[in-house]
Amino acid sequence: MKALEEKILKEGTVLPGNILKVGSFLNHQVDVDFILEMGREIARLFENCGITKILTIETSGIPVAMGAAAALHVPVVFAKKHATSNLSGGVFSTVVHSYTHGRDYTVVVSCEYLSNTDVVLLVDDFLANGRALEGLIDIVQQSGASLAGAACAIEKGFQRGGDALRARGVRVESLAVIDSMTDDSVTFRR
Amino acid sequence: MKALEEKILKEGTVLPGNILKVGSFLNHQVDVDFILEMGREIARLFENCGITKILTIETSGIPVAMGAAAALHVPVVFAKKHATSNLSGGVFSTVVHSYTHGRDYTVVVSCEYLSNTDVVLLVDDFLANGRALEGLIDIVQQSGASLAGAACAIEKGFQRGGDALRARGVRVESLAVIDSMTDDSVTFRR
Repeated sequence: MKALEEKILKEGTVLPGNILKVGSFLNHQVDVDFILEMGREIARLFENCGITKILTIETSGIPVAMGAAAALHVPVVFAKKHATSNLSGGVFSTVVHSYTHGRDYTVVVSCEYLSNTDVVLLVDDFLANGRALEGLIDIVQQSGASLAGAACAIEKGFQRGGDALRARGVRVESLAVIDSMTDDSVTFRR
Repeated sequence: MKALEEKILKEGTVLPGNILKVGSFLNHQVDVDFILEMGREIARLFENCGITKILTIETSGIPVAMGAAAALHVPVVFAKKHATSNLSGGVFSTVVHSYTHGRDYTVVVSCEYLSNTDVVLLVDDFLANGRALEGLIDIVQQSGASLAGAACAIEKGFQRGGDALRARGVRVESLAVIDSMTDDSVTFRR
C-alpha cells in the first residue's frame, strides 16, 4: 500500500534494536482516518472470504483491527494479556513472546466470542517474528473456527516470521513489507 | 443514548463486585458498527468545541476513542500502561489506580503527541470512581493543552466519580449512566 510506505518514510524513525517507531500514526497516536483507509484495503484483500470475525491482540493491534472491521462490518475480538475480574466462564489461552517488551504473556479469549462457525481474519499492527500471530492461530484452532488468513500493517520481512507462516500455508497480507532498515533508510519489498 | 441502554439491558451481565460485563460489544468483543454509532453521538455532543485530539488510556478505551475520532476526524492518543522500548524522548506520566485489576499503573504519553495548542477530549469505555480520567486530566495539564471535557460510554453513577469531576467543573458526558444495579436489574439515570 503505497500511502503506508510513504507515511513510514515520512514519519517513521528507526531506533536501536531494529525498532521502527511509528507512534505518530499507528500505535501511540493513531491517525484514525488513515487507519480506516488501511482497513478498507484489508477488506478489499479479503473480500468474498466469508469472514465473520476479526481477531487481534491488545493493545496496538486494536486500531488496525477496528479499521478492517469497520469496512467488513464484522466484530473485533481482542485477545487479552491480563486476566481480569470481568471474564467469566471458559477461555482459550496461549503463551506469546513479546519482542517489544522482552517477556512472555499468557493471552486469553473468552470461549463466548469464538466458535466453530466463525471464519476468522487475524489483524495486527506489526509482523516481525510472527509469535503473536502464531498465538492467535493457536486460539483459533482451539475454538474450531476456520482461519481465513492474517493481515498486518507493517511486516519486518527480514525477521522472517511472515514467510514462515506463508510456508505453513497461512495467507498473510501485509500492507507494507520492510526488507531492510538502517538508521537513515527503509527499503520495502517489491 | 437509548440504543446503548437497550444493548446493556440485552447483552450485559452483572458480576459480583459491582462489575458490569459488556464484553460482547464493548471491551473484549467489539461491535464496531455500534461503536461508530456511539462515536457519532460523542461527536455531536462536543461539536463546535474545536477539539484537535482525543486522549484515552489503553486498552479498552481505545475502541470508543476510535469511534469518536472517526466522527470528529482528529487523532487519538492512548496513554500507555507499560514503558516500551519504542518510546524515545520525554513523556508525561501519572499514576492511575485500576479498579478492575486492583493495582496502580504508571501511564505515559509521549510529549510529542500533546502540546499547548491542543484542545483535548478524554474518552473512555467506563467511568466509575474517575481515577482514569483524573490521571488523563493530570497529563493534559502537564502538556499545557486545553481540556474540552470527557465522554464515556457507561458511567456507574453510584460510584460518584463522574459527579466529582462535574463538581470540579469538568464537562462529563456519559452515553449511559447507571444509578443502581443488582444481579438481575440495571437502572439508568434519567
